[in-house]
Amino acid sequence: MSTSHFLAEILEQPAVLSRLLTEGAAHARRAAEQIRQFMPEWVLVAARGSSDNAARYAQYLLGAHHRLGVGLALPSLVSLYGAPPRLGRALVIGISQSGQSPDIVGVVAAAAGQSALTLALTNDPDSPLARAAAYVLPLLAGEEKAVAATKTYSAELYTLAMLSAVLHQDAARVAADWTALERVPIAIQQVLESAAPSVLSAARAFAGAGKVVVIGRGFNYSTAFEIALKIKETSYLIAEPYSVADLLHGPVAMIDENFLAVVIAPSGPTLGEMITITEVLQHRGARVLSISDSADLLRRSHFGVDLPADLPEWLSPIAAVVAGQLFANALCGVLGRDPDRPRGLSKVTLTR
Amino acid sequence: MSTSHFLAEILEQPAVLSRLLTEGAAHARRAAEQIRQFMPEWVLVAARGSSDNAARYAQYLLGAHHRLGVGLALPSLVSLYGAPPRLGRALVIGISQSGQSPDIVGVVAAAAGQSALTLALTNDPDSPLARAAAYVLPLLAGEEKAVAATKTYSAELYTLAMLSAVLHQDAARVAADWTALERVPIAIQQVLESAAPSVLSAARAFAGAGKVVVIGRGFNYSTAFEIALKIKETSYLIAEPYSVADLLHGPVAMIDENFLAVVIAPSGPTLGEMITITEVLQHRGARVLSISDSADLLRRSHFGVDLPADLPEWLSPIAAVVAGQLFANALCGVLGRDPDRPRGLSKVTLTR
Repeated sequence: MSTSHFLAEILEQPAVLSRLLTEGAAHARRAAEQIRQFMPEWVLVAARGSSDNAARYAQYLLGAHHRLGVGLALPSLVSLYGAPPRLGRALVIGISQSGQSPDIVGVVAAAAGQSALTLALTNDPDSPLARAAAYVLPLLAGEEKAVAATKTYSAELYTLAMLSAVLHQDAARVAADWTALERVPIAIQQVLESAAPSVLSAARAFAGAGKVVVIGRGFNYSTAFEIALKIKETSYLIAEPYSVADLLHGPVAMIDENFLAVVIAPSGPTLGEMITITEVLQHRGARVLSISDSADLLRRSHFGVDLPADLPEWLSPIAAVVAGQLFANALCGVLGRDPDRPRGLSKVTLTR
Repeated sequence: MSTSHFLAEILEQPAVLSRLLTEGAAHARRAAEQIRQFMPEWVLVAARGSSDNAARYAQYLLGAHHRLGVGLALPSLVSLYGAPPRLGRALVIGISQSGQSPDIVGVVAAAAGQSALTLALTNDPDSPLARAAAYVLPLLAGEEKAVAATKTYSAELYTLAMLSAVLHQDAARVAADWTALERVPIAIQQVLESAAPSVLSAARAFAGAGKVVVIGRGFNYSTAFEIALKIKETSYLIAEPYSVADLLHGPVAMIDENFLAVVIAPSGPTLGEMITITEVLQHRGARVLSISDSADLLRRSHFGVDLPADLPEWLSPIAAVVAGQLFANALCGVLGRDPDRPRGLSKVTLTR
């Protein structure tokens, strides 16, 4: 059996990100300079699908590291209701692999027509989105052939992380963050080399039952959404993302022994809660696949993927999502699905 | 069998909202005056669970009617990362039935400590949330005994709608919006009187299969989230909310004949897309329960609940959610669940 585009692009990620760190640095510095001059009151991010999950990462990253309030755009306010918000003091970021989706372009164009500072993250620097924005951060990921995004998602996160690093005023902080960024491709390589047995065991044990919840918090709230989306769009299993708080405010009632819980738990301020929620989920009968650098949590879990311990929490989403991509791929293998041809999907979705 | 608190509180909603319109009007006018003076650059709403779905309604309402950009707060930036965003030019609204959740109080307290304008929507005007905010809009819904929120959710939406009405500068617009608001309790009464046969048929036909997607767009994106949450927390069935765009960007791949799709489709700019997505879902084998005033869509659907046609789209979420509450209640009846005692939940969830 030949390797799918989906798996080939998952495996390509260390090389893609290594190239991006070198070739994208100047773009990131130029955009950071503009943001420092503009001094936005707040940030609005317009995105759909996987890119919307990258937007969730931007919310925590720009919030925790730069005290910026970040909202997710409602494109239909422009496209259906003809009522773009007042964006004069906002930084408006459009994120789209293809740069084609008219609703995302519409938000950025509306912002550019006011006095907002506009930025596009896209894999196609000649796309309508790139043309609508004042500044472009190209993803430089090469063509993505699989419908389900993998390398462009990690490139979006990495681009945001590079932007955050060079946005700091303090040169020592910039240097420290950049050094941490340099470790990411190696960390992904480690996940690629070590995760296969665990995700395959979990997929074999679980493909029949088919109800998955993915739990993440803080920086990895985005990862929970992206892993759930990968599972849904390639294996067609039901998979729902939650933060710990969201789960406890209602949906926990549905959890029983028919569920697999994927728990994303790097070291940091979220780890204690992730261990507690793992106990709650196991008490209700769910099985757990943890993605963590905590030996304690990995030992308590039915299945576990090691996260490299030397990656700081703010960069852990870029490595953790790879474990989820491999799990989605393993589910496809066990279920006999072709991950390159999800039924009912095409690569560019032109929502309005 | 005695009536559950859950059903009793669903049935109470016309009376609760009629009282709120009279007794809450002065509070809404006072808050609107403050907002007009403050002239916020943007709005941040902090909420969890059902109240977070009311926040989604606020995003569309304040966006479409007042051109305000509205973001949803990430309470963990305050509680876990100690990094509240800069909120000096923001209107910050905390929404919580109990007013107790420390993470929501934390966001409003952090905003009040800057120069933000703060507002609390809560059913307990003596709660920590009410004390943290400069202005309080009391929900005046009476004690809610069921764990799953119903009358406090519709009271939150109605309070936001009242605030939006009196926030307009134009007196004729205020009067027109207020006249529309006066129709809401009657519209809910009509749904309560007409929905039972359809939701019971749908529940009987569907309780065994147990995979539900709830589709809404624009103002009713919030309704999709709230109906899905009601189903999850009372009947324990899997239920996922989507906008049309989100569904087409991936999750549509999982839809098959094991799904029930609840489609919320009032007349307005979203109706055409809702009819199209209904065809897509039916083509993939899903059965459809529509909540709509479109005779065409109701005729095409397997099950349908009539929405009163004289309610404008911006107020339709307050009537549409009642149909979903009744559907959740019917599912509980068919499945033999006690909707007053969801396993693993308590009325006040103190997330941090």
